Amino acid sequence: MDLHILDHKLRVTSISKTGLQQYTHPLIKLIFLRNRTRCKFFSLTETPENYTVVLDEEGFKVAPLSTQELQPSEHLQVEGSTWLPLNVVSNGNASSSSQAVGVTKIAKSVIAPLAEQHVSVFMLSTYQTDFILVREKDLSVVVETLVEEFNIFREEGGESVPVHSQDACDSLQRNGREVPHATVHPVLIPENQFCVMSLDPDTLPAIATTLIDVLFYSNSPKEGASVDQDMECIKFFSFSLIDGYVSLVMDTEAQRQFPADLLFTSSSGELWRMVRIGGQPLGFDECGIVAQISQPLADSDISAYYISTFSFDHALVPEEDISSVTEMLQAQRKDVSS
Amino acid sequence: MDLHILDHKLRVTSISKTGLQQYTHPLIKLIFLRNRTRCKFFSLTETPENYTVVLDEEGFKVAPLSTQELQPSEHLQVEGSTWLPLNVVSNGNASSSSQAVGVTKIAKSVIAPLAEQHVSVFMLSTYQTDFILVREKDLSVVVETLVEEFNIFREEGGESVPVHSQDACDSLQRNGREVPHATVHPVLIPENQFCVMSLDPDTLPAIATTLIDVLFYSNSPKEGASVDQDMECIKFFSFSLIDGYVSLVMDTEAQRQFPADLLFTSSSGELWRMVRIGGQPLGFDECGIVAQISQPLADSDISAYYISTFSFDHALVPEEDISSVTEMLQAQRKDVSS
Repeated sequence: MDLHILDHKLRVTSISKTGLQQYTHPLIKLIFLRNRTRCKFFSLTETPENYTVVLDEEGFKVAPLSTQELQPSEHLQVEGSTWLPLNVVSNGNASSSSQAVGVTKIAKSVIAPLAEQHVSVFMLSTYQTDFILVREKDLSVVVETLVEEFNIFREEGGESVPVHSQDACDSLQRNGREVPHATVHPVLIPENQFCVMSLDPDTLPAIATTLIDVLFYSNSPKEGASVDQDMECIKFFSFSLIDGYVSLVMDTEAQRQFPADLLFTSSSGELWRMVRIGGQPLGFDECGIVAQISQPLADSDISAYYISTFSFDHALVPEEDISSVTEMLQAQRKDVSS
Repeated sequence: MDLHILDHKLRVTSISKTGLQQYTHPLIKLIFLRNRTRCKFFSLTETPENYTVVLDEEGFKVAPLSTQELQPSEHLQVEGSTWLPLNVVSNGNASSSSQAVGVTKIAKSVIAPLAEQHVSVFMLSTYQTDFILVREKDLSVVVETLVEEFNIFREEGGESVPVHSQDACDSLQRNGREVPHATVHPVLIPENQFCVMSLDPDTLPAIATTLIDVLFYSNSPKEGASVDQDMECIKFFSFSLIDGYVSLVMDTEAQRQFPADLLFTSSSGELWRMVRIGGQPLGFDECGIVAQISQPLADSDISAYYISTFSFDHALVPEEDISSVTEMLQAQRKDVSS
């Protein structure tokens, strides 16, 4: 298989719930007015805690995200590192017999080895693919760790340049195939059902007002609407526009607000259930969180999307597998507490 | 003819050019998300100086316009008065032989008499009609001034209630039919051609991204676009959404950005030229400015739209009449200077 180091230098930021409206102007520009920015990698995920925005440096420059001219740091947090997105491309002759999609497919080949080498990863699954974000400063370790399993390419100005690791290969301590003993975090399994969708980017204007409403105004009560919020459901909405591809993750309630003929999902039309990982905000330095959940999913060949945010991680598993995943997670927690 | 005092209490505000992006959130809500506000009267006009926003109290309450939580008063000016919109309705048996439309039609019956009584007016012509805004505190003078000529109704909660003026009718000093001797302001006649358009409010979502681009991002350079700005042209764009009706005034360059099949103009498809009135910002207290230009237009039976903004007034006259209007204005200015 091939591993591509994509040509985007990313920042991971968080906007507070109450601060979002101050960032409406740059965010709408980044989402809807592509010809006005050079941004090629943009992702916005709403969770109950905040909004996580992952974007490339060109997007980050769009005022006032970078200049922070509006009350610096009160509503905007920026993780200090530059992150690079990795992308695994099956080149046809992959030997994997797995039918699973998403993070499950790369659990053993990428996620586990990186966890062993204590490399933090920030996952961003989309409709199209799964991005594995690693810190730029960890890149040489990443390459050395994965070079045995993958043909590694670095994308530079539209070209794919092969990357060879000759220098520091032996300096890595090979810890064997065990994920380091990590904290087992509490999980939350909300009741809502999610779908992972896409649309033709040319039809983005057609859903603009709905998307703006959901993203920027869903916290203010609708005139005349009754309060009918199931407290067992979680607020989670993710939009990404990466290299011209749109991906949307939303629950079935949000989906009903969009015109049915424009958004599409995979042919199976699967619904997904969420496992939110973390009781306290996870931070960015702990390793092995993704591995902890993706390894057993891989063992059971259960598909999963995985979306990291500023505070928590979120795995999405097929609805029909949620009970076995729940059991699996309970067993994992028993093992630790015993 | 009937004169209706509409059931909207209006505020006239101005947002600075550099401050607009801080007000993107409430403005987009007011323009596109009608079910999230109780606002029924909203108008936004961009001029080279600033953005004039006229809106009812329900719209004004939409944070942060009223709370001014963002750097109070640095970017937002609010005129101190409450204004009421008046609207003239031809009830079929009007004796006027005029074919002209817009402010010309009401020049002699409304504009001139109010100027004589030293009542300031703020004009807002739209595709559908012409609103004459007067200060709430001037209402009794307005009624007394116009009650001879009009059946006056006050709209309250959907009902039209006849208004009679018995009390103070004699207290008015009738100054005859001469507009008070007012300052004659310099005028500017830019080169661009304007159109006055409308669209079905249900199709507003279809032009959302274009309208957002034009309103909120037109001051930032487009990536890759060449600078091709005719310095003889003026930046002027007006959007209003009043009682469910949309009106747009834009020049032909802006018009080209919108899909041609959604916006419509009057069957004649007329183009309009602008006369901007005022060398220095006009303020809100001087009377007779509208009268000064609308009276001679009425004498010549030339149609005109008229849009007041926070700093200047703008008359729009048919393209084919611009040379005679120019001569007329030059003559007016010679009379004063001689």
